[in-house]
Amino acid sequence: MRGDVPHVVILGGGFGGLNAAKALAGAPVRVTLIDRNNHHLFQPLLYQVATAALSAPDIAAPIRKILHRQRNCEVLMATATAVDVEARQVALEGGPPLDYDYLVVATGAVNNYFGNDHWEAHAPGLKSLEEAIDIRRRILTAFEHAERVATEAERAPWLTFVIIGGGPTGVELAGSISEIARHTLARDYRNFDPRHARVVLVEGQDRVLSTFPEPLSRKAEAQLRKLGVELMLGQRVSSIDAEGVVLGTQRVAARTVLWGAGVQGSPLGATLGAERTRAGKVRVAEDLSLPGHPEVFVIGDLASLDRPDGGEVPGVAPAAIQGGQHAARMILNTLRHQPRAPFRYVDQGSLATIGRKAAIADFGRIRATGWLAWVLWLGIHIMVLIGFRNRLAVLFDWAWAYLTYQRSARVILTNTPARSPDTD
Amino acid sequence: MRGDVPHVVILGGGFGGLNAAKALAGAPVRVTLIDRNNHHLFQPLLYQVATAALSAPDIAAPIRKILHRQRNCEVLMATATAVDVEARQVALEGGPPLDYDYLVVATGAVNNYFGNDHWEAHAPGLKSLEEAIDIRRRILTAFEHAERVATEAERAPWLTFVIIGGGPTGVELAGSISEIARHTLARDYRNFDPRHARVVLVEGQDRVLSTFPEPLSRKAEAQLRKLGVELMLGQRVSSIDAEGVVLGTQRVAARTVLWGAGVQGSPLGATLGAERTRAGKVRVAEDLSLPGHPEVFVIGDLASLDRPDGGEVPGVAPAAIQGGQHAARMILNTLRHQPRAPFRYVDQGSLATIGRKAAIADFGRIRATGWLAWVLWLGIHIMVLIGFRNRLAVLFDWAWAYLTYQRSARVILTNTPARSPDTD
Repeated sequence: MRGDVPHVVILGGGFGGLNAAKALAGAPVRVTLIDRNNHHLFQPLLYQVATAALSAPDIAAPIRKILHRQRNCEVLMATATAVDVEARQVALEGGPPLDYDYLVVATGAVNNYFGNDHWEAHAPGLKSLEEAIDIRRRILTAFEHAERVATEAERAPWLTFVIIGGGPTGVELAGSISEIARHTLARDYRNFDPRHARVVLVEGQDRVLSTFPEPLSRKAEAQLRKLGVELMLGQRVSSIDAEGVVLGTQRVAARTVLWGAGVQGSPLGATLGAERTRAGKVRVAEDLSLPGHPEVFVIGDLASLDRPDGGEVPGVAPAAIQGGQHAARMILNTLRHQPRAPFRYVDQGSLATIGRKAAIADFGRIRATGWLAWVLWLGIHIMVLIGFRNRLAVLFDWAWAYLTYQRSARVILTNTPARSPDTD
Repeated sequence: MRGDVPHVVILGGGFGGLNAAKALAGAPVRVTLIDRNNHHLFQPLLYQVATAALSAPDIAAPIRKILHRQRNCEVLMATATAVDVEARQVALEGGPPLDYDYLVVATGAVNNYFGNDHWEAHAPGLKSLEEAIDIRRRILTAFEHAERVATEAERAPWLTFVIIGGGPTGVELAGSISEIARHTLARDYRNFDPRHARVVLVEGQDRVLSTFPEPLSRKAEAQLRKLGVELMLGQRVSSIDAEGVVLGTQRVAARTVLWGAGVQGSPLGATLGAERTRAGKVRVAEDLSLPGHPEVFVIGDLASLDRPDGGEVPGVAPAAIQGGQHAARMILNTLRHQPRAPFRYVDQGSLATIGRKAAIADFGRIRATGWLAWVLWLGIHIMVLIGFRNRLAVLFDWAWAYLTYQRSARVILTNTPARSPDTD
């Protein structure tokens, strides 16, 4: 313990945790931000790493570099395994527990297989850089297998890509894979035509992107079909194995199945001893604190909070950013003996991208689709990413990809050797 | 078998194999290039991936994209396990064997631990992208551990980096790690000063870069010392474990040990049934063919050939490129019933880089050191890389790194999950 100022521990260096830390800059507190990775991840573009358009470092920046000028903040790369809210301690893997005066839990969400965890082996989700590189490997390797096999019957499952879940991640993956097959790889194989690859998007509801107004969903579906994506709406998955998926009674033979059907609160949330939703999110008080523990805040994708006008605060980056800033303000309020205030999520509008010149945008009264929505999406992400990375390289990767249809990260990385567990 | 033209099989998509394939463009042959990776790797810059300056896709390009316009060439991603020179067949993992009329073996070299293969777990070498990412993870994670430990005694081994081998790879790694500690990370930690990290370069001979003239080695040593690298010359490693290395009778406690002390011919060379050197290289005839098998060529790092003026053809990229072109020409000569010609390696000069504004260059009569040699090195590599990648992004990564001392790929990637072995 250095100094006698209160110690704020933040778990997670995503949008929520990072913004909580930043909002405490210059405050009379000592901040420790803990993440199991060394990097903050710009998750909205993770699908671009999975589909070989960007490299992993393009969308990741070292947390300690982002915060290195903030003298009251220490960054630790460590894995938090549990919180003891009574003792006010966080248990860390491979080290002594850490005491806190205030705690901000921002550990986010993990893939949710709804009780079918064995599906994960055959249908990876997209939550981390490692998963993105795994998905990239699967997509690119499938085409390599297709080139090697001797018969069309063997080839077809390698050229069939099934994406489960018609939310933003599923739509982005389906659109990108279709573009890879139809443009990027179009002339690279000798034994088959990649343009004949099947990309199937499966959604349990009767429309994709169901958080958007229905007319926008229909536009998105039309844009997906134009990109060559087959839509299977109102279809539920009954099983997944190495050979493909079963939808109701129909079997689709596919060697590449990707999961975008749902997320659940990170396992750390279960150790907080609070009520949780069916999706494992922690029900928080209106100031984002843990009921009965005003010194603990839960923010971002791990938190469940109803909005006054109905519906939950969504699990999106702006909600996490605003939540992190709110938690920081509430800690400062308490230090100044001021009252708490309820968290009010400000909806800045929604954008979903589908592919090249294809997107939908919903800013309440203003809606856009197609080319215009895509340019909006691109502009916002370029701006945010340039601010985040301070790098023009990403811009050049994008401009190059746009002009040439080529993807600059078409590299299959096999498992990196982990020879010495003590250094991992 | 398509068509009745001779089938040339090339094993390996490195500098040698790729240039053999290119030199056969338009020739009346059918070419199959086989590599276990989907990418050609620009190996001279691999250390920059290991030291977080470049991302993996920056120095790797899909082999089939490089060759996609060459209609007589097919690319297969597959692992060759053995060659049967009598049956003229290559055995492939997970598939039927492949017949050839001509074979070019260009599978390169692997790390050589001189009979101490158990050292590999503690001292990885730098031959593949996966190893580069592993080394990057070890370097960056060591600093993270140093931030977490409680005492100076625990911290010191995490801040000691030992590089075994004073050849180009060892020198590049030592110089880069020292720059990372002294510049890139200088202000990012709270519990220690990264500038106090020890970087130790161990070399068995009495000078580094011993393939260069001695005055240049001495210049390189001075430049290394200026960068803060400790040199231990004339020192041999007697053991390596998870805690450090033993040099003679002196123990150096270090959690990060890297291997750059030697390479040996790839294991595939052993299946050719020919005489091999102590380093596992295949002794080839003067036209680069396998003695007794004029239809088989061995080129690049796997081949051992004495030069008329003494010494071996070195294991460098220009020798592999020239070897690939020569093998292709010899195949075409045979098809045209023309005689074979001996391979003449043209030495284009040598460059070794040490760090920012530090390098040595030897072009026979012209030698350079320091700033001038570094600009030469940079210019040549930028030109080659831009031709190779057609991308300006790398240039911006470099310019950014030069101006800010920051490294754009400071991302620790843990092992990517390999859930479904059948897709790997």
